[in-house]
Amino acid sequence: MPPQRGAGQASIKRGDMKRRQFITTGAIGGAAALGAASSFPAPAISQGRQQWTMVTSWPKNAPGVGVNAQRAADMITALSGGRLSVKLYAAGELVPPFEAFDAVVSGTADMLHATPYYWQGKSPVFHWFTGVPFGLNATEHAAWLYFGGGQQLWDEAYAPFGVKPLYAGSSGVQAGGWFVREVKSLADLRGRKFRIAGLGGAVMQKMGVNVVLTPPGEIFAALQSGAVDAAEWVGPWNDLAFGLHQIAKYYYLPAFHEGGPALEISVNKQKYDALPKDLQQIVAAAAQATATTTLADFNWHNAISLEPLVRDHGVQPRTWPDDVVAEMGRATKEVLTEIAASSELAGKVHASFTNALQKSRAWSKWSDQAYLTIREQALGA
Amino acid sequence: MPPQRGAGQASIKRGDMKRRQFITTGAIGGAAALGAASSFPAPAISQGRQQWTMVTSWPKNAPGVGVNAQRAADMITALSGGRLSVKLYAAGELVPPFEAFDAVVSGTADMLHATPYYWQGKSPVFHWFTGVPFGLNATEHAAWLYFGGGQQLWDEAYAPFGVKPLYAGSSGVQAGGWFVREVKSLADLRGRKFRIAGLGGAVMQKMGVNVVLTPPGEIFAALQSGAVDAAEWVGPWNDLAFGLHQIAKYYYLPAFHEGGPALEISVNKQKYDALPKDLQQIVAAAAQATATTTLADFNWHNAISLEPLVRDHGVQPRTWPDDVVAEMGRATKEVLTEIAASSELAGKVHASFTNALQKSRAWSKWSDQAYLTIREQALGA
Repeated sequence: MPPQRGAGQASIKRGDMKRRQFITTGAIGGAAALGAASSFPAPAISQGRQQWTMVTSWPKNAPGVGVNAQRAADMITALSGGRLSVKLYAAGELVPPFEAFDAVVSGTADMLHATPYYWQGKSPVFHWFTGVPFGLNATEHAAWLYFGGGQQLWDEAYAPFGVKPLYAGSSGVQAGGWFVREVKSLADLRGRKFRIAGLGGAVMQKMGVNVVLTPPGEIFAALQSGAVDAAEWVGPWNDLAFGLHQIAKYYYLPAFHEGGPALEISVNKQKYDALPKDLQQIVAAAAQATATTTLADFNWHNAISLEPLVRDHGVQPRTWPDDVVAEMGRATKEVLTEIAASSELAGKVHASFTNALQKSRAWSKWSDQAYLTIREQALGA
Repeated sequence: MPPQRGAGQASIKRGDMKRRQFITTGAIGGAAALGAASSFPAPAISQGRQQWTMVTSWPKNAPGVGVNAQRAADMITALSGGRLSVKLYAAGELVPPFEAFDAVVSGTADMLHATPYYWQGKSPVFHWFTGVPFGLNATEHAAWLYFGGGQQLWDEAYAPFGVKPLYAGSSGVQAGGWFVREVKSLADLRGRKFRIAGLGGAVMQKMGVNVVLTPPGEIFAALQSGAVDAAEWVGPWNDLAFGLHQIAKYYYLPAFHEGGPALEISVNKQKYDALPKDLQQIVAAAAQATATTTLADFNWHNAISLEPLVRDHGVQPRTWPDDVVAEMGRATKEVLTEIAASSELAGKVHASFTNALQKSRAWSKWSDQAYLTIREQALGA
């Protein structure tokens, strides 16, 4: 069955460049070893020991993503007592960052660490497995996958490609964007040149924002020269390293389009099925365990990075104006409805995700949101 | 080094009965096999294969807690290919629920699945490793443990007992309580007979509430007869099964004292250290993987249980009045300050937890709380 190429795809493709460009330029961490190495070891099988290749879309040891991919690879090696050792290749070391999925499909690599929406060119359905604007947050997304039927749909979406997907955690809520000038209303936002990626960009375009696709390595210069008025990146941890606060002081939070984007560890299904049962379960457990540390890692480092941004660098956190939020909601429904109409599977995934979202919204409102609200009330400044 | 018995302990001991009584009466799930069995297999070691005993404080397969303890035990068995098989004993099958820690200390059991505050009789410091009123939520707690120095302090707190603690997830935010009559102000709450457990009870006592320690199996009857005016239990998933909504229609959310109580898988340290390296890491990875599914499990089932409570049973969710929240905050500080003064270690843990809380509050306000807020604004009713 060939990948579905649906109606929603064209409209979202241009926006889907944030990580693409980040990775190509190796902007975070500065440690990307780009360019294909001349030779790679073939998977060795001797005395029941084998070596697997994990490709990633991240620079080596990139904060949050690269580091936790390495943790997962090392965990599989350790838990199997070396029977299945996993060697990680950073973006560009074995294949270019956006060919990781194809590498796993073809068997060039055995597994990958990335995020599903990178492969939206295969099927726009994949967006839901990363997450969508105003979608499930990290905990709700994991609940949907493990207990709400999400994993079965993800399996179904990847099956035509011979790939078995596993959830590997999330960055948690990302940041909405750095603005040189305050945004006081929707009218104020319209026409601004805003560097924003993915479905967030597609939504902003529908809102009359001038969406710009500045490569990450050029964001700082683009903000400085006025080529863009605003730019979103990841969150305090990664943004602090980028230095955007030196130019733009208004930090809009949160990212309406990235409330808990999911990471994946996905495996060539034929190779996965051929593993002894205990090694299969080790691979699955490593992904599940990595989910815990990845979310914790981002949460801790975002928390300790926000403080110096505000205290030492005069950054002013801001929420989005009410009329902007309302329009984001309207445009998001439009974008998602388009993608949902692109195939039967897209409609089915959209329905399942939306049902989970409806139930999660009510509970999160009375649990997480209410708890954070009364905690602030009780503990004060 | 003997366990610290501090000043804060007496004041919190009476309140710390919720789970104690729940377990003794086997109220949830109705499947508790109480009473010691006549004989148990000795740990078998043959041809590099060994069997470990996991004791828990939960009825067999109790929703959320018992089921995920079983998942962790089965995962260790599976990942090790049976080299380390773990047999789970529910509360009372091998030892009574509140002797699980002692059983691991003495080596009668190899490991346990429970929550640290159950052993607060050993040291009130243990409260922070479960969580405290207005403390860290589940994600923040994991961040503190894995990246903020929390695990090292937990290791230090358990070291005198020869126990190695591992984080095993959380229920997420719990529910605040079922009230027969609405609570419109602090004056209104004072003098009410409220069944509330743990440090939450200690705080409520300081607020002039008449804290009652009704055993779980008697809560329904106590509410019906008017012996209590209100009762808190766990959350929608577990509460629905209890039927409290048949009598009390006002559901106060959230539990100010249980914003993300942590579960533990703790191991006899001597036995843990004697394991081959790969089996040690399998035990640790199983706990870490279980953390992901446990939080997801509670989140999903609470979400799908809240809906029928409201839709079919006329339950009215309510937030706490402002003056009640303010007084909860004041009394919480008093209770925690008392416990922090009980030993040098308590002071150190309190300081570390409070530092993590301060940083987490700022980030959660601008990320999770802000995201849930604008999501509601955008998606509407």
